[in-house]
Amino acid sequence: MRLPEIRPIETRWLEAAWARQDRLTKPPRSLAYLEELSVQLAAIGQSLRPELGQGAVVVCAADHGVAAEGVSAYPSEVTAQMVRNFLRGGAAINQIARTAQAEVWVLDVGVRSELEEHPRLIRAKVRPGTDNLAHRAAMTKTQAEEAIGAGLEAARRAIREGATLLAAGDMGIGNTTAAAALTAAWLGLPAEAVTGRGTGVDEARYHHKLGVVQQALRRAEQRLGDLAQADPLAVLAELGGLEIAAIAGVFLAGAEAGLPIVTDGFPVTAGALAAVRLAPGVRGYLFAGHRSAEPGHHRQLEALGLKPVLELGLRLGEGTGAVLAFPILRAAAGVLAGMATFEEAGVGPAVEGS
Amino acid sequence: MRLPEIRPIETRWLEAAWARQDRLTKPPRSLAYLEELSVQLAAIGQSLRPELGQGAVVVCAADHGVAAEGVSAYPSEVTAQMVRNFLRGGAAINQIARTAQAEVWVLDVGVRSELEEHPRLIRAKVRPGTDNLAHRAAMTKTQAEEAIGAGLEAARRAIREGATLLAAGDMGIGNTTAAAALTAAWLGLPAEAVTGRGTGVDEARYHHKLGVVQQALRRAEQRLGDLAQADPLAVLAELGGLEIAAIAGVFLAGAEAGLPIVTDGFPVTAGALAAVRLAPGVRGYLFAGHRSAEPGHHRQLEALGLKPVLELGLRLGEGTGAVLAFPILRAAAGVLAGMATFEEAGVGPAVEGS
Repeated sequence: MRLPEIRPIETRWLEAAWARQDRLTKPPRSLAYLEELSVQLAAIGQSLRPELGQGAVVVCAADHGVAAEGVSAYPSEVTAQMVRNFLRGGAAINQIARTAQAEVWVLDVGVRSELEEHPRLIRAKVRPGTDNLAHRAAMTKTQAEEAIGAGLEAARRAIREGATLLAAGDMGIGNTTAAAALTAAWLGLPAEAVTGRGTGVDEARYHHKLGVVQQALRRAEQRLGDLAQADPLAVLAELGGLEIAAIAGVFLAGAEAGLPIVTDGFPVTAGALAAVRLAPGVRGYLFAGHRSAEPGHHRQLEALGLKPVLELGLRLGEGTGAVLAFPILRAAAGVLAGMATFEEAGVGPAVEGS
Repeated sequence: MRLPEIRPIETRWLEAAWARQDRLTKPPRSLAYLEELSVQLAAIGQSLRPELGQGAVVVCAADHGVAAEGVSAYPSEVTAQMVRNFLRGGAAINQIARTAQAEVWVLDVGVRSELEEHPRLIRAKVRPGTDNLAHRAAMTKTQAEEAIGAGLEAARRAIREGATLLAAGDMGIGNTTAAAALTAAWLGLPAEAVTGRGTGVDEARYHHKLGVVQQALRRAEQRLGDLAQADPLAVLAELGGLEIAAIAGVFLAGAEAGLPIVTDGFPVTAGALAAVRLAPGVRGYLFAGHRSAEPGHHRQLEALGLKPVLELGLRLGEGTGAVLAFPILRAAAGVLAGMATFEEAGVGPAVEGS
């Protein structure tokens, strides 16, 4: 597939941003992680006065054949019900987006039922749900490409309509199972290390879910060999979710446009892993909105070298933990952009602190 | 002194808010700490649809006689210089407040130099800096009361002008020394447990600072006996900073008005401890914006039973870590206020998750 061009992050912008940060009227490094965020934002925006305006979250929705295995506490029907809830503004992501100056877009890339038209719904169904990844490939490679393309186009539209700060969200009953399989495959980890309780399964169902992930990994290995080394698109097709592929597309589009992109929980960060596998340049544009309660999320963030902005124990998805971090990113940019230097403010001595 | 009336937080509001929270369209408790925050906000506002509008931070500023001991990396002059920086909009708190919909008020309750009039400066100097608490009482009990009163009045003004969410900030070279002495006194801890590097002193200066705190505690104990049991106003007068007393007043005013109040780092949380000592009802209105890098801050939050919203390693003060949490609190309120229930959204089954 043809991947978008991504401008590399330049060291000179990082250095210039640190140099400015260290002249601002505060003890050096006293804003800690906020300063690190501001420097990355400056390098992304190629400006020492980065400005983050309107945000957007593209919530990618699709169903999972593996839901038939009973790996979730909820039935597949809930995917479409929640999409309608997003479109009516009744879900958690709607409230969080409202308080964080972000538009909510919903992308149907593979919900089983037909969804009614809506100005905020982007209809790009590749197929009505994946096949059951425990038994066969979730989709074809062509379908995985199409799903990535749908995410790319959805995010490009959100950007055309004014977004300058972009998050991806997920909705898909069964998707922590797909995310666990993909994460185990790409990070070379056993299923146990990355399989969690998702939105809340009990002990028996958890063990069943773990078995499903193990079975899927064995099946994929028989077809593709070492999954950490295999063609990432082939792995995505074997184990993926359509919405996880679309999420990779959202992140590719954000990096292509030179915008900060924010990852959410476990399924969304599986999409971020996919995007970085396909185009390593994406990493420089990526922020971790939060660390979720799902144990595999921690391993994903570690692999990506990302430190979460928030640690609130969330385990909802929908992009909630990503959008919740938007105001913190805006504050980080604002500090670098708007603070006076010691010289400007006549505050001194500037250098005595350590 | 006459303390304001504070309406107790009612269990029935907490229960009603949890009941609503558990019917919203998400797996139960999947928004974790955000749900806890929303429930406290509902009980504070006595509404299942809490709304947090305009925020305000009252940055309380004063000088410290103990700065003469060389306990800070910065000279006392920086207090007034930074106040001018706040009023010109060049400091970190100004940028963070701008991105978090908060007004910045500055209260001069004891800056050594005379400050020019400014529409955002509340001039209520009790005295031009405290005495050196290593050698004598920082101020008289009457002055401590006056400083609390100045904080009360400043916050009441911010509330009259529209604030519905309130934070306190601090500016005062030397104030982590006063905060350490007060915290050790009230929590019955040794100086070592609560004395840190403030805005960044080196090893030698740190040991000197520790010695100063120990000396101050011994002196105060000789006068007042067991400091954890002594009259809190007397302890505040012996060891306090004028701005720490004013911060207590800000929190008293917020609780009096039935508004959420947000604490910042180490000196501000010393003010919160003072407010709760004077009027335990304040606690129900209090949120911890963040946990700072200052080791004693952790002990203060523990003693108050507060879990921080953010953990970004900040160690600046000015109210930055408090105001940075405003958007998260607004999101928490928004989730409870605006989300659809399972019944409303036709999403189900509502109860299968665990």
